[in-house]
Amino acid sequence: MKKSNRRRFLEITALGGTLAACKTGGKVEEPAPSRLGKPVSAYGERAPFEKAARWTRTTRTPEQASSNTPHQDLNGIVTPSSLHYERHHAGVPRIDPAEHRLLIHGMVERPLIFTMDELHRLPSVSKIYFLECAGNTSSEWPEKTAPDVQQSHGLASCSEWTGVPLSLVLAECGVKPGASWILAEGADPCRMSRSVPLAKCLDDVLLAYGQNGEAIRPEQGYPLRLFVPGWEGNISVKWLRRIKVGDQPTYTRDETSKYTDLMPDGTARQFTFEMEAKSVITYPSGGQKLSGPGFCEVKGVAWSGRGRIERVECSTDGGKTWKDAQLQEPRLRIAFTRFRFPWNWDGSEALLVSRCTDETGYVQPSKEELIAVRGLHSNYHYNGTKVWKVAADGSVSNV
Amino acid sequence: MKKSNRRRFLEITALGGTLAACKTGGKVEEPAPSRLGKPVSAYGERAPFEKAARWTRTTRTPEQASSNTPHQDLNGIVTPSSLHYERHHAGVPRIDPAEHRLLIHGMVERPLIFTMDELHRLPSVSKIYFLECAGNTSSEWPEKTAPDVQQSHGLASCSEWTGVPLSLVLAECGVKPGASWILAEGADPCRMSRSVPLAKCLDDVLLAYGQNGEAIRPEQGYPLRLFVPGWEGNISVKWLRRIKVGDQPTYTRDETSKYTDLMPDGTARQFTFEMEAKSVITYPSGGQKLSGPGFCEVKGVAWSGRGRIERVECSTDGGKTWKDAQLQEPRLRIAFTRFRFPWNWDGSEALLVSRCTDETGYVQPSKEELIAVRGLHSNYHYNGTKVWKVAADGSVSNV
Repeated sequence: MKKSNRRRFLEITALGGTLAACKTGGKVEEPAPSRLGKPVSAYGERAPFEKAARWTRTTRTPEQASSNTPHQDLNGIVTPSSLHYERHHAGVPRIDPAEHRLLIHGMVERPLIFTMDELHRLPSVSKIYFLECAGNTSSEWPEKTAPDVQQSHGLASCSEWTGVPLSLVLAECGVKPGASWILAEGADPCRMSRSVPLAKCLDDVLLAYGQNGEAIRPEQGYPLRLFVPGWEGNISVKWLRRIKVGDQPTYTRDETSKYTDLMPDGTARQFTFEMEAKSVITYPSGGQKLSGPGFCEVKGVAWSGRGRIERVECSTDGGKTWKDAQLQEPRLRIAFTRFRFPWNWDGSEALLVSRCTDETGYVQPSKEELIAVRGLHSNYHYNGTKVWKVAADGSVSNV
Repeated sequence: MKKSNRRRFLEITALGGTLAACKTGGKVEEPAPSRLGKPVSAYGERAPFEKAARWTRTTRTPEQASSNTPHQDLNGIVTPSSLHYERHHAGVPRIDPAEHRLLIHGMVERPLIFTMDELHRLPSVSKIYFLECAGNTSSEWPEKTAPDVQQSHGLASCSEWTGVPLSLVLAECGVKPGASWILAEGADPCRMSRSVPLAKCLDDVLLAYGQNGEAIRPEQGYPLRLFVPGWEGNISVKWLRRIKVGDQPTYTRDETSKYTDLMPDGTARQFTFEMEAKSVITYPSGGQKLSGPGFCEVKGVAWSGRGRIERVECSTDGGKTWKDAQLQEPRLRIAFTRFRFPWNWDGSEALLVSRCTDETGYVQPSKEELIAVRGLHSNYHYNGTKVWKVAADGSVSNV
């Protein structure tokens, strides 16, 4: 592609710089396929050239571990189920759906037990929602660093979830006056349990059995999980087997020994459920390398546990100046929103960063703003902006 | 669950009948997991209990065949990529993305060749769109019958597609005055080719490289396919290697020997691109069996190549009386819309059927209305309503 042609993209994108994207010569290579390709198949697999994988820290206890979504390799807003992040407290149990039961008891008129077949006959809802671990991006508190977006932001993913509204099933059981919380318990060996305010359960919580069209994957709670939209991931209890209705939180091990946020004054915030607005640039991002100067679409995702993403701004100078990014429609509540920002890289060092605003008007804070309020030891709920440095040689790193 | 409890669901759904869904007793089975579950993994797989698979007709040429999506097993609107329908004319070629090239030539100022890396740097779009083979539901023309919704309607699926707008790349090449069509050619051994009007290419056609977050699957055109929203599937040429801009259609083998619709007067309609509005009940549907009378949510999908689905009506008496179904939001243009209809089955024979209306006001025709216009030999573009019979024993069949 000649220089004169490169200029055409500048007109299209109305930006300065040069296009280095297309530099192939004018020769057409003619492959000569001599035989038929592969036949149709029952259950497809990805191309053997594709290597995107979840990342996990080397550990002696991979059953009590997490694995991260490779955002740098993904497009759009749907995370492939095979690459949805994981966080297990005692490994993934093998549960036969024909044997699985959900018990609802406690402060209810009619304790009930449901089979999976029974749940499948009930009224259902399908929604595209993100899910994010409270510990996502904890590597950005100053002590640590992550080399890429998968390690820094990979404990968040987005799927289409299908299930029965919990409100409907609770109405069937008849919640007694005075009830205000539930306890949700998983069928994993550690019986991971969390307390959820009843008001949220009567709002938008699902008994979810479907993920991206199929049955929920084993790592996501097969055959049934609680799904609590917009709240920290661990409260969406996987392999859900029991719900007990009560009049106070249960203060389980999982909500006292962890999942509390230590503040600078030495107190700890407990039951910090909502995931606040957050965004990150996924391309170009840490560990990637641009092949040369020229046009490059900067891409990323933004999300908020409080609703819709209204705005994403991008900066190429580390936050000194900002411009609005384009937001892919539809912008769904409590779901990833894909943003894009046209950029003509002139080949000099650049600092790429994004910040988002949600429908409540909340603006994603800078790292400094976040630390000013929360100190350095919160561990959970880090949602500061993320800067990537593009060096003159095109290599991208965390700074 | 006692009878008195069953009545609660009637209040919730405001419908008559009885609930047979929940009949488990009050005993809680206590599984005793004694060991840790499985550790985190790099690329997840579905549960071993899940057996949903694409269906294909027994054939001596599985490279020149199709396979169908198991709608009866799916939820929501996203079709898992592993279960997206297939239609191949010469099998699935193995293409190394590092070697793949797209040539654009013909009536352009600047013929260009793009590598995949170059395409990835260009401005992109992600959209949830259905794709449907022109031959989907051809078994419903009177000569044939299909026992289930997978065989009758399985040549339609829905994914989030990501790619570069073709309009942008054509602008880069500089389309010459007088041009009005393109030819798109695949890299499969048969060089499957279709002519597409230039006006559509400048509207919403994509050079698609992403599907449901990941790279496009091999069966869907890896690493690059044309994606022509709302038009018959074969025109979204897979394994796209060449686009030639011209001033007339090419009349390739694939658009003359097939993909024309024979009308009752002996003429054939050619270039019938748009997929008209269509809906089908996926649960309960042919081959399934209801465990007994009581509440049962009737579920299905509706779609239109002309835009948004505005309304779906359901009937339990074969179309004598109709009631509005609930439509899952967001209702996206040219995408599946999931519909749901609460039904209390009284245990007597029922005839379930759905019909949809799209944003243009077009109403899905009955089979009789369709045949009155198109006769019996169109083969392609069948979009009549579909009736499933629920027998007194709960078994569901095609009638």
